[in-house]
Amino acid sequence: MTNVSIIKQVPLYRFLDFCLAHTKEGNRRILDCGAGGNMPPLALFRQYDFETCGIDSDEKAVEEARAYGEERGLALNIQLGDMTALSFEDSSFDCVYSYNSIFHMKKTEVEKSIRELKRVLKPNGLMFVNFLSVDDFRCGEGPHLGDNQYEQMDDEPVIHSYYGHEEADLYFKDMTLLIKEQRVIQRIYEGNLIRQGFIDYILKK
Amino acid sequence: MTNVSIIKQVPLYRFLDFCLAHTKEGNRRILDCGAGGNMPPLALFRQYDFETCGIDSDEKAVEEARAYGEERGLALNIQLGDMTALSFEDSSFDCVYSYNSIFHMKKTEVEKSIRELKRVLKPNGLMFVNFLSVDDFRCGEGPHLGDNQYEQMDDEPVIHSYYGHEEADLYFKDMTLLIKEQRVIQRIYEGNLIRQGFIDYILKK
Repeated sequence: MTNVSIIKQVPLYRFLDFCLAHTKEGNRRILDCGAGGNMPPLALFRQYDFETCGIDSDEKAVEEARAYGEERGLALNIQLGDMTALSFEDSSFDCVYSYNSIFHMKKTEVEKSIRELKRVLKPNGLMFVNFLSVDDFRCGEGPHLGDNQYEQMDDEPVIHSYYGHEEADLYFKDMTLLIKEQRVIQRIYEGNLIRQGFIDYILKK
Repeated sequence: MTNVSIIKQVPLYRFLDFCLAHTKEGNRRILDCGAGGNMPPLALFRQYDFETCGIDSDEKAVEEARAYGEERGLALNIQLGDMTALSFEDSSFDCVYSYNSIFHMKKTEVEKSIRELKRVLKPNGLMFVNFLSVDDFRCGEGPHLGDNQYEQMDDEPVIHSYYGHEEADLYFKDMTLLIKEQRVIQRIYEGNLIRQGFIDYILKK
């Protein structure tokens, strides 16, 4: 086993557990949308022998992920890409996910992206997606684009779309819900107590 | 690295991440209260070179954990014990936790146990504890012992104590909160959609 750092996006450990339990052993193929950064979660899946594939819309994030993989001899296969128009075949992955990423788009694009994730997923394949919830302390901050969509200042202006507790259920009417988790997190960030709200889904096609 | 199964109690991956970041490398000592069962989470910490120590009040659970450790050549050091009266020295652990376990006692005993966890923890050491919340679908089921404490039938009658969203904060007034997470989980269990409610805390002494 390659020595992979503890992946900070810990809910992915549960998704891995579900993928191992619900999909057939051998040649499992997984896609991460929003796969970049200096600790790419695909490393966790690669460690468990998944054939990995990732896209990210940010060039720097793709480079960081490549550097992480190269240092550890992990072929993660992460490239530039657009989640709303995936360049992959229908039914070509056993598992797909997008974690802490999809809500940086307007809801019309979120819907498109989820349609794309479903398209490239094999029948009986597993999907993991999460959303920001209206419980989040930043919901209401910045210019409002309607329907709980805000343009907020991170390092640059970034869209944040927030969801009601049941709102995203609609996207998954044609899938089987395996688990849905609503989370409200309080933690110290840069000296202040902040409150984050997320809703995570694991689904079967 | 030893090949350890994916630990089902996934929030422990975050606690591991915090322990690695907040405590000094080398000879880290960790205690798990409620450590038994056929997939002992201490295996995860042992894999990261912690010196592990665990107690469980159930003899069968201790045996299962021993078998898991022996099969993988992991010295987990798990034994019978009582969380309300720990047989360890003051300030003898860098990290202590009790996960999905402490709420199987009445609240008076929960308070005693938390006092014990604090006692055996070193200054600046890290603690992880979680509680059932009043959001849980079983809150209200079975004979009520007052104050959201119920005697419920699992394989045998077992106490379940449920907490309001802020109720357990009181136990930790003398510690620094690093993270608090309120979770409401919906999942299929034995063919039915169930709703579980938890509140997790990570604290520094």
